[in-house]
Amino acid sequence: MESDTRRFVLTLGCPDETGIVARIAGFLADAGAWITEAAYHSDPESDWFFTRQAVRADSVDCDIDEFRRRFATLADEQFHPDTEWRLSDTGTPNRVVLLVSKESHCLIDLLGRAERGEFPGEIAAVIGNHAPLGELAGRFGVPFHLVPFDDPQVSKAQAFERVAALVDAEDPHAIVLARFMQILPPELCQRWAGRTINIHHSFLPSFVGARPYHQAFARGVKLIGATCHYVTADLDAGPIIEQDVIRVDHGDNVADMVRQGRDIETLVLARGVRWHLEDRVLVHGGKTVVFD
Amino acid sequence: MESDTRRFVLTLGCPDETGIVARIAGFLADAGAWITEAAYHSDPESDWFFTRQAVRADSVDCDIDEFRRRFATLADEQFHPDTEWRLSDTGTPNRVVLLVSKESHCLIDLLGRAERGEFPGEIAAVIGNHAPLGELAGRFGVPFHLVPFDDPQVSKAQAFERVAALVDAEDPHAIVLARFMQILPPELCQRWAGRTINIHHSFLPSFVGARPYHQAFARGVKLIGATCHYVTADLDAGPIIEQDVIRVDHGDNVADMVRQGRDIETLVLARGVRWHLEDRVLVHGGKTVVFD
Amino acid sequence: MESDTRRFVLTLGCPDETGIVARIAGFLADAGAWITEAAYHSDPESDWFFTRQAVRADSVDCDIDEFRRRFATLADEQFHPDTEWRLSDTGTPNRVVLLVSKESHCLIDLLGRAERGEFPGEIAAVIGNHAPLGELAGRFGVPFHLVPFDDPQVSKAQAFERVAALVDAEDPHAIVLARFMQILPPELCQRWAGRTINIHHSFLPSFVGARPYHQAFARGVKLIGATCHYVTADLDAGPIIEQDVIRVDHGDNVADMVRQGRDIETLVLARGVRWHLEDRVLVHGGKTVVFD
Amino acid sequence: MESDTRRFVLTLGCPDETGIVARIAGFLADAGAWITEAAYHSDPESDWFFTRQAVRADSVDCDIDEFRRRFATLADEQFHPDTEWRLSDTGTPNRVVLLVSKESHCLIDLLGRAERGEFPGEIAAVIGNHAPLGELAGRFGVPFHLVPFDDPQVSKAQAFERVAALVDAEDPHAIVLARFMQILPPELCQRWAGRTINIHHSFLPSFVGARPYHQAFARGVKLIGATCHYVTADLDAGPIIEQDVIRVDHGDNVADMVRQGRDIETLVLARGVRWHLEDRVLVHGGKTVVFD
Repeated sequence: MESDTRRFVLTLGCPDETGIVARIAGFLADAGAWITEAAYHSDPESDWFFTRQAVRADSVDCDIDEFRRRFATLADEQFHPDTEWRLSDTGTPNRVVLLVSKESHCLIDLLGRAERGEFPGEIAAVIGNHAPLGELAGRFGVPFHLVPFDDPQVSKAQAFERVAALVDAEDPHAIVLARFMQILPPELCQRWAGRTINIHHSFLPSFVGARPYHQAFARGVKLIGATCHYVTADLDAGPIIEQDVIRVDHGDNVADMVRQGRDIETLVLARGVRWHLEDRVLVHGGKTVVFD
Repeated sequence: MESDTRRFVLTLGCPDETGIVARIAGFLADAGAWITEAAYHSDPESDWFFTRQAVRADSVDCDIDEFRRRFATLADEQFHPDTEWRLSDTGTPNRVVLLVSKESHCLIDLLGRAERGEFPGEIAAVIGNHAPLGELAGRFGVPFHLVPFDDPQVSKAQAFERVAALVDAEDPHAIVLARFMQILPPELCQRWAGRTINIHHSFLPSFVGARPYHQAFARGVKLIGATCHYVTADLDAGPIIEQDVIRVDHGDNVADMVRQGRDIETLVLARGVRWHLEDRVLVHGGKTVVFD
Repeated sequence: MESDTRRFVLTLGCPDETGIVARIAGFLADAGAWITEAAYHSDPESDWFFTRQAVRADSVDCDIDEFRRRFATLADEQFHPDTEWRLSDTGTPNRVVLLVSKESHCLIDLLGRAERGEFPGEIAAVIGNHAPLGELAGRFGVPFHLVPFDDPQVSKAQAFERVAALVDAEDPHAIVLARFMQILPPELCQRWAGRTINIHHSFLPSFVGARPYHQAFARGVKLIGATCHYVTADLDAGPIIEQDVIRVDHGDNVADMVRQGRDIETLVLARGVRWHLEDRVLVHGGKTVVFD
Repeated sequence: MESDTRRFVLTLGCPDETGIVARIAGFLADAGAWITEAAYHSDPESDWFFTRQAVRADSVDCDIDEFRRRFATLADEQFHPDTEWRLSDTGTPNRVVLLVSKESHCLIDLLGRAERGEFPGEIAAVIGNHAPLGELAGRFGVPFHLVPFDDPQVSKAQAFERVAALVDAEDPHAIVLARFMQILPPELCQRWAGRTINIHHSFLPSFVGARPYHQAFARGVKLIGATCHYVTADLDAGPIIEQDVIRVDHGDNVADMVRQGRDIETLVLARGVRWHLEDRVLVHGGKTVVFD
C-alpha cells in the first residue's frame, strides 16, 4: 500500500449531545490528521450519535497504537461511558473466512474480486460442507476445509464445533455466510456477533426462511431481492446492511428467479462485505448506519 | 379518437393446449384484422394459457358487437368451457371511480394525467370521507361525493352502503382506492372483484396493514416500496399488478420515508391503473399476467 | 414552523487544509449549536473542501443575523480568501419562480407538493408563454404572468426582458425552468447564475438540444432519462444536480417515451429543486456536490 | 438436455401485413408444435414485423432439418422476399469465443456461469493479448490463445489476422469482446456482422471512445452505465442490446467509478450474450428487438 492511500479510520457511536464533533475534530487537528472522509449521523429516535472519519495515516504524528491510546484517554475523560469506538488501520489487512455449501456464485465473485485487488480484505480460508467448492477455492489458491453436515457419524452440533474451531483459528474480522444454507447455532451467533454476515435470497422481511424464490413465485411479486445482514440468533432478523431488487414478470418461473436472483445476491453480498471491512457499518438497536 | 388509433382488444385465458394461437390468429385473419400488439404466455405451473391481442378497429370487417358475437361462437365451439375472454373497444371510454381520504398525491396525479390526455379512462367521480380532496377534485371539474366515516349517527356499514350506491351508479370499469385508508367490507370486495385496485404503501408481502413506513423504519430496510394490487377480502393479499421501490438510508426518518414513498405510490398506482384500463392485466390463481 | 424543526444551515466551500472541521465544529459548539445534520466532502482532484451543517435554531445563543456576523468574522480571520459560505434560516421561506410553456406535468407536480406542504419553498409566481398553464396555476392560487414568445410585435429579446423584470421583482432563491422550452439568453444565465434550474428530458450528456426522445428512439437506447441541472450559457452543459432513468423497450414508440419520460422528468426536477432549496447543492468547477 | 426442455426456436422478421401470425400459427399447429413462448412486435415506424416462437422439440412431428425444410417452403411461397428467418435447436449447443485483454471481471463471470450450467452456450475458446487471463481461463479448462498486440515484429493487421483465423476455426455463434480494448477492423466487423458483441463501459451514446469513466467523472453525471451492443464498423454505434446504470455521487472518484462500473459491465454483458444465444435479439435498421 502506498503511503498516501493508507488510512486510520475512526468509528464511534455514543449518546448524542452538543460538542461531540468539536471534541473529535479538535483531537484530530491536534494530531495533524488530514481528514479524507468524514460522516456524521444523529438519530433523533434513539438520541444516538454516529460518526466515521478517515484520515491519512501519513499525516498523523504518531503510529496507530499511540493514536488509539490517545483516543482512549479522550474517550474516557470526555465521552459518555456507553460510547463505542474503534480505530483501525487500513494498512493491516482484514482477515475473512467464507462459509459455503454448493452454490458457487457468491464464492467465485468474492474470489475474483480478491484476485483483481478490489476486495478490502484477505480471504484467509473457505469452509464448506461439500467438496466441489473446495476445488474451486483451490484454483484461486485459497485454503479450503471440508466439514460435512450429512455424515451420520457426526452430529450437527459436532460439525459446527469443527467449523467454529476452524473459524476461530483465523481470528477473522468477518465471517461471511456466502450461501451457507445452514442455520448457525445461537452460541456461534453470539460469539461472532457483529462480524458474521449472511446473504438471504429475498427482500427481507418478505420470505424469511427456506425457499424464498418459491415463496416469491407463489405470491406473484413483481420484484425479487436479496438482503445482506448481520447474523443474530433470530433467523433472518439481524441488522440489515444492504438490499437490492430486480424486476421479474409472469414469464419468469422459479428457475428463472433463482438464476436472476443470483446476480442480485452476488452484488448485495459484495457491497455489504466491502462496507463492513471498510468500517462503514455501525450497528445500534437492531439497525445499521452505513456510511457508504 | 382518430380512426387509426382505435383498437379492438381481445384478452383470453384458458387451459393450455396445442392450436390455440392458430385458432385465434385464423379468426383474426378471417376478419381482416391488422394486429398491432400480440402477447402470449403459457404457464407450465397451472397449465394455463393467456393472450392479449390488439387490432386496428378500422381493419376489422364488422363492428365490435358483431365481432364479439363471432368470437363467442368460436369460443363456444372450439375452446375449453373454462375459457375466459373479453373483447373491448378503446373507442368506448372506461369509467373510473376514485375513492380517497386525506392524502392528495395519488388523486392530483391521476387528475393531472386525465387533464393532459394521458389517462386511458374517464374519471367519472371521486368519493371521499373528508372535504378537502373534494375541493381539489372540483378544481379539475370532477364530481365529488362526501361520505363521512366518522359521523356518530352513521355506522361504518351504512357509510359503505352509501359508497357502494354511488360507485354502482357509475358502473365503473375500475374502482381505484387512491389511499382510501378504509378496509372494504368482504361483500364489496366480492361484488367488485377484478376491478377494484388498491395502492398499498409497502413492498408487499412486507409490512401488511397499518403504518407500513413505521414498520419499515423499525426494521431498518434499505429500500421502501409500494404495491398496486386487486382488492380481495384477504387484506393486502390480492393479486399484485405492479410494485416498485426507492432507496432510503439511515438519514431518512419516518417522515422522510412517508414523503419519498408518496412518489413511488403515485407512480405504481398510475401504472397499475393504466394497465388495468388497457386490458393488459389477466388474473389467474391469485397472480397476474401483465402484458405491458 | 415549530421551534424544534427550524434550522440554521451553514454551507461552505474552500481550499482543503487540515483543521477546517475543527474550526467550524469549535465555532458551532461555542454558540451552543446542536448539530442535526453534518456532511463533509474533500475532493482530492480539485483540493477543495465542502461542508453542510444544519443546527437547531433554538439551540443557538443568538439570532441568524448575529450568527452570520460571527461566522463572517471567523471566515475573515481563519479561512482562505477564496472561501464561499452561506448561512440560511429555514424559518425564512425560499421564494421560487417557475417558468413554463405548454407541458403541465412538472408544474402540477410542484403545485401539488407546495399545497400539501412538502415543498421547501414558496411558489411566488409562474411565468409562461401560453395561457392554459396560467389557468392551472390560478386553480392553486398562484399568480401567473403571460409573456407570449410568438407575438410578431414583440421580439424574443423584448419578451425575455419582460420575463426578467417579472422574475427579478420576486427576488427568488430559485428560478425553475419547468419545461420552459425557451433557451435563456446568456445575460440572464449570468445574472441568475447558481439559482436557475432546468429539467432536460434526456440523460445528459446524451441527446443535447431539441427532441431528445426522438433522438433516443432513433438510437434504440434501452433506458431513457432526465437531467436536472443549473443553467449556464452553454446549452444543457451546466452542473448536473440529479438524473434518473426508466427502462424502455422496442414496444415503446416516441409517444410512449414522451409519456413515460414525463414521470422521470417530474421526479428528477422535484428532487433537484428540493435539494437546491434546502441548500444541499454546492457547485465547484462545473460539477455539484449534493449532500442529500 | 432432458427431452421436455429442448426447444426449436423460430425467429422471423419481414415487412408487416395482415395474416402473418395466422400463417405461422397454422404452420406450427400442423406440425403438432406445442408453443412455450411466443412474442410478436409490429414496428409502425419501419412497417416491419418481428416474431420469436419457442416450441417443445418433442412435440414436433419431425426433426429440425425437416422442420427447417418445411418452413423454407412456406417462407418461399407465402412470405415477402425480404423476410429473414432462423430456426434453431437448443439441443445443439452454441459455440462462443471470448476476446479479452487484461480486465478479468467479465471473463471470470462468464466462466463461472458456464461452469455452473447457467450459460446458454459453450465457451469454445478465449483469445487474449496478455497472458494473465490465459492462466485464468486455464483454471476453468477453457483453451486460450495468446495474440500479442504490442509485439514490434507483428503489425496490428497481422495480429488481427491471427485472431480472425482462431475465431473462424471455431465457427462461433457469438464472438464476445469481453473488455477486449482493441478496435476491430472494418472487414472483421463485416465478416462477423450480427454475431460480434461488445461491452462498452458507458451509457451510450454518452462517452463514446476511450476512458469513458474519466469522461463521466469530468462531466459530473449522477449515474454511470454500461452498454452491450453489436459491433459495427462505426465505433460504439452498433445496435444496442442492453444497457443499465448505477448511481454514483460526488464521493466517487474515477477509481470508484471504474470499480462500481465493473459490476454493471459484467451484468449487462451477461444478459446481452444470453439473449443473443437464446435467439431473443432481432436486428433491424440499426436497432434491436429483444424478446426477453
